[in-house]
Amino acid sequence: MDQAKLVYSANDSFYKAFESLDIDQMERIWLPASHIKCIHPGWPVLSGPGPVMQSWQRIFDNTRSMKFDLAEVQVQVAGTTGWVVLLENLESQTEQGTSHSQILATNIFQELNGAWFIVHHHGSPILMPPTEATERLH
Amino acid sequence: MDQAKLVYSANDSFYKAFESLDIDQMERIWLPASHIKCIHPGWPVLSGPGPVMQSWQRIFDNTRSMKFDLAEVQVQVAGTTGWVVLLENLESQTEQGTSHSQILATNIFQELNGAWFIVHHHGSPILMPPTEATERLH
Repeated sequence: MDQAKLVYSANDSFYKAFESLDIDQMERIWLPASHIKCIHPGWPVLSGPGPVMQSWQRIFDNTRSMKFDLAEVQVQVAGTTGWVVLLENLESQTEQGTSHSQILATNIFQELNGAWFIVHHHGSPILMPPTEATERLH
Repeated sequence: MDQAKLVYSANDSFYKAFESLDIDQMERIWLPASHIKCIHPGWPVLSGPGPVMQSWQRIFDNTRSMKFDLAEVQVQVAGTTGWVVLLENLESQTEQGTSHSQILATNIFQELNGAWFIVHHHGSPILMPPTEATERLH
């Protein structure tokens, strides 16, 4: 089995768990290990299962729905580690209404007994439009 | 040799290259591979040696000095892959003056022939103070 496809699939499972707003589903796709970490956009680093899962619970408690359209998904695998860099097009509904945002994410996965689990999520806002960034390179 | 120490050292070399403002020094610590990627704070994803190195050249051209004080450095290693999550306390001087900023970074490294090279840098701004994030978890 192509390991890159398995990492791609594990990445999809992460966003499906995100959309489910179900903490049990989210907990199942994280490696149950002390070194897991999570950086929500603009937040400080959360380390370990306790703080990471509490943050998801808090986000789920304050969200009515989330819908991700993933773009520019780039997958790398080296041995039992994989990482995915992608653009999240997110539509979220809260009590405050519907909002659309674009977030860049780096997700790191580790393989354990044939299954891939997420061990690190780093999400961050895009502040510079792509055209401006391209111009800055010329 | 402890691989985690080597990854820690490779991470230090990345920030020394950053402070050097020397494109040759920066180029030497990146794996010369098509899959290298870089996300500067607020920028879109840059992929491949060309766009990544052009971005450093542009940053170096527009900077007089950079000084990093690294904090909360957490290193993980699995086989030939390592990743570091940390807080960058940055003092930078440009034509516009001196500025201080805090940036969260995820840096991924790969080992090749006994040496560790950076393959991905994801930097992002902190928008929420740590105290508020902690309160949101309670």
